[in-house]
Parts: sequence; structure tokens; C-alpha cells
Amino acid sequence: MALTLYELGGLNDRRYSLYSWRTRYALAHKGLTAEYRPVRISDKAAIAFSKQDKVPILADGDQVIHDSFRIAQHLEAHHGGAPLFGGEISQSLARFFNTWVDRTIVPRLAPLIAIDVMGILDDGDAKHLRSVMEKAFGKPLEELAANREKDVVGLRRLLDPARAQLRAQPFISGSQPAYADYILLSPLQWARIVSPLPILEADDALAAWRERMLDLYGGLGRTMPARA
Amino acid sequence: MALTLYELGGLNDRRYSLYSWRTRYALAHKGLTAEYRPVRISDKAAIAFSKQDKVPILADGDQVIHDSFRIAQHLEAHHGGAPLFGGEISQSLARFFNTWVDRTIVPRLAPLIAIDVMGILDDGDAKHLRSVMEKAFGKPLEELAANREKDVVGLRRLLDPARAQLRAQPFISGSQPAYADYILLSPLQWARIVSPLPILEADDALAAWRERMLDLYGGLGRTMPARA
Repeated sequence: MALTLYELGGLNDRRYSLYSWRTRYALAHKGLTAEYRPVRISDKAAIAFSKQDKVPILADGDQVIHDSFRIAQHLEAHHGGAPLFGGEISQSLARFFNTWVDRTIVPRLAPLIAIDVMGILDDGDAKHLRSVMEKAFGKPLEELAANREKDVVGLRRLLDPARAQLRAQPFISGSQPAYADYILLSPLQWARIVSPLPILEADDALAAWRERMLDLYGGLGRTMPARA
Repeated sequence: MALTLYELGGLNDRRYSLYSWRTRYALAHKGLTAEYRPVRISDKAAIAFSKQDKVPILADGDQVIHDSFRIAQHLEAHHGGAPLFGGEISQSLARFFNTWVDRTIVPRLAPLIAIDVMGILDDGDAKHLRSVMEKAFGKPLEELAANREKDVVGLRRLLDPARAQLRAQPFISGSQPAYADYILLSPLQWARIVSPLPILEADDALAAWRERMLDLYGGLGRTMPARA
């Protein structure tokens, strides 16, 4: 059955979705191939078929699934290949990890680099995203990023529980990567693609983990260049 | 093989260990019985056989295991019964949950109610614990607790990722409780035993979950009375 993933596309076809890298890695993990279709962030008509307004969206034959976590559950339930979770308890704890990343890490990361996203969008998308972000955070993007070299230190500290994980094992999920690794990689990959700000210090165990993650599946993460 | 759990014991044999309830529930989960031996917090000689100075400690025949997470791993590897984790990925993600609770929740909970622990200890133990806690937090216990009715609101907010978990399912681990549930219950059970401060509001989904947890295994959690 044909798989199509709808994700954000910017100038020069940069695929910069905050969350769709979770799905890209989940598909690779299961050995599945898909068509990756870019969507402009302001073009809600292009994804109206999904009856909601956010990407990623996976079309799997006749089925349309949105929300990266629900897509992962769908892939686990309906496709073979290596397990993304490996059981109910693990899927539940991956959900917790997903919530932790989305509520603790993303809201501290996004304001620091939203200003950089402007540079990889056409004028219409840039205007749209600025409006959404400035409404969400209550400040101009320039102001949100004004002290980012200092603010990023607090973000790094928030990542401590994930960092501690890597003392005992090479991946968040254990000896091998699984869906929880893709959950955390996705916002870091987003940051890598849209911004030159160093989110992690070079000697951070999480930075070494990120390199290992970018290497997976024939260098999947490196198919998109880092922002210079 | 005989199992013995060493845990903190206070006045009137109150078993108030912050972490040993994780092990008590893990043993019940696996249908195992053990002897529960109380240790005074200042009596390091009583647990010197473990070659370290913290409880809980499990003696399983000739083996001596300390640290609640390592004890859970030991029980999973060497005893039958229902799985506490159910696979490597799940065990890894439970480790993350353990780190999150111990680094995010416990350091905000402990200073609010440490003053109450004094009331269930003999003079020697109270003096010992006061010294340890005041060194760790850099303030007198009375000062740490001075604004606790207000400070507990921040603690409740920090629990949001766990609370979100219960929107999708009755337990942190899914449709049934497993080790991650015991990880979070243990500090809340500690609070219930040592302090009258309401850590959770009555209409909090986590409060309903806590009641379900206390009901498990024939009301295991209620064998120790709540502090009036």
C-alpha cells in the first residue's frame, strides 16, 4: 500500500517540520518507504483532506492519520519491521516521553530559533509563522531571541533527564534506537535545519547521541543540510 | 529463597521510606512475599553489610541489592510473576521516568514536608535527618516549609506530564499498573505517611489515580495510615 507523508517544506525544499522527523525515522526503522510531500505552512487548503490543520499527516492507502504519536501507533499496529515500542507498557512510557519533550523542551527551544525559520520561508509563509509564533509567545520574534546565547543554557539544563539516560546506555531506548529516540531527535533536527544556534555543547553526551542518530539509516538525518 | 527488604522505620513502626514503596509494590506485583525490616535513618551500622548507606536494600538469598531501580531490575530478571517492565525498551523508558521523578518532582516535594518527618522520628533520627536536609537545601526546615501552601502549586504544575498520561489511560503504564506507576506513587505515599499537607487537589486526575494505586494488592498502600 502506498505511503505518503505530508510535512512542511520551505525555500530550496528544506523539510523543516518540527515533528515530521519522528515519522521519517519511524518509517526507516520499519524499513518502509514513502513519498514525502512538502506543504507550505500557510497553505491549509493542501491538507484540508485530513480534516485538521497540522502536519505531519500520513496517508496509508485509504487511511489518513495525523499527529506524529498516532502515526507511530498506526505504523506499529499495521506494519511489520522492527518494533518502535515493543509492547503496551513501552508505548505508554514513550507517550510520557513524548509529552515531556513537547511540553518541557519544545516550548523553551522554539522561541530561541523561530526568528531563524523566517530565513528559509517565502514571504507568505514567513508572515504566517511570525503571526502564529508571536501570538503564542506574546512577544516579537526578535525579542524572544534577544538573549538566546544565555537562554540556551537553561534549555540544556532541562535536558538533564535525557542526558542521564545516556550514562547507562547508548540510546534513550536502550542498546538500540527506537521511537523515543526519534521523539527527542525531531526537535533537535528541526533546530539543526533552521538555525545556526548551537543547541548542545560539543562535549555533551546528547551531542554524541545526536551524531549517532543522524548517522542511522544511511545518514537519513544528514540528507537535509544543517543551517550555516 | 527468602527475601528481606530493609527500609526506614520511624515511631510507631511507621514505614516512611521515600523509595522503598517502589519495592513493596514491585514485590506485590510479582506475587512475592518478603520480610520488611525497619532501619533507623541514623543507624548506618545496621546496613553496613550492603557496603553503602542508603535504603531500600533487598537481600535475596545470598545476593544484596541496593537502589530501588536496580532492585526492580533484579526482580524482573530473577523472579517470575507479572512483568514490571516487559522488555528492554520499556525498562529504558522506565529508567527515564525514574530520573524525571527523582530529579524534577522529589527535590520540590521534599523541602515542603521534611519538617513533618521530624514528628514521626525519635530524637536521634530527627536530629540526623534535619542535619542532612538542611545541608542539602541550605536552609532551616522551618524556612523551607514557610510558604508551602503556595509552593505546592508549583509542584502540582510540574506533575503535568504525568497528569496528561492519565487522559489516555488509567495508569501511567497503560491499562494496568506496572513499575513506572510505583515509581511515582512512592514519593506520594511517603508524603501521605509523613505529612498532612495535601500534595494533590481533590479533583486532580492524579489524586484519583493515587486512590486506585492505594487500593491495589488488597489495599497495600493503606496498610500504613495517612498522617492526620
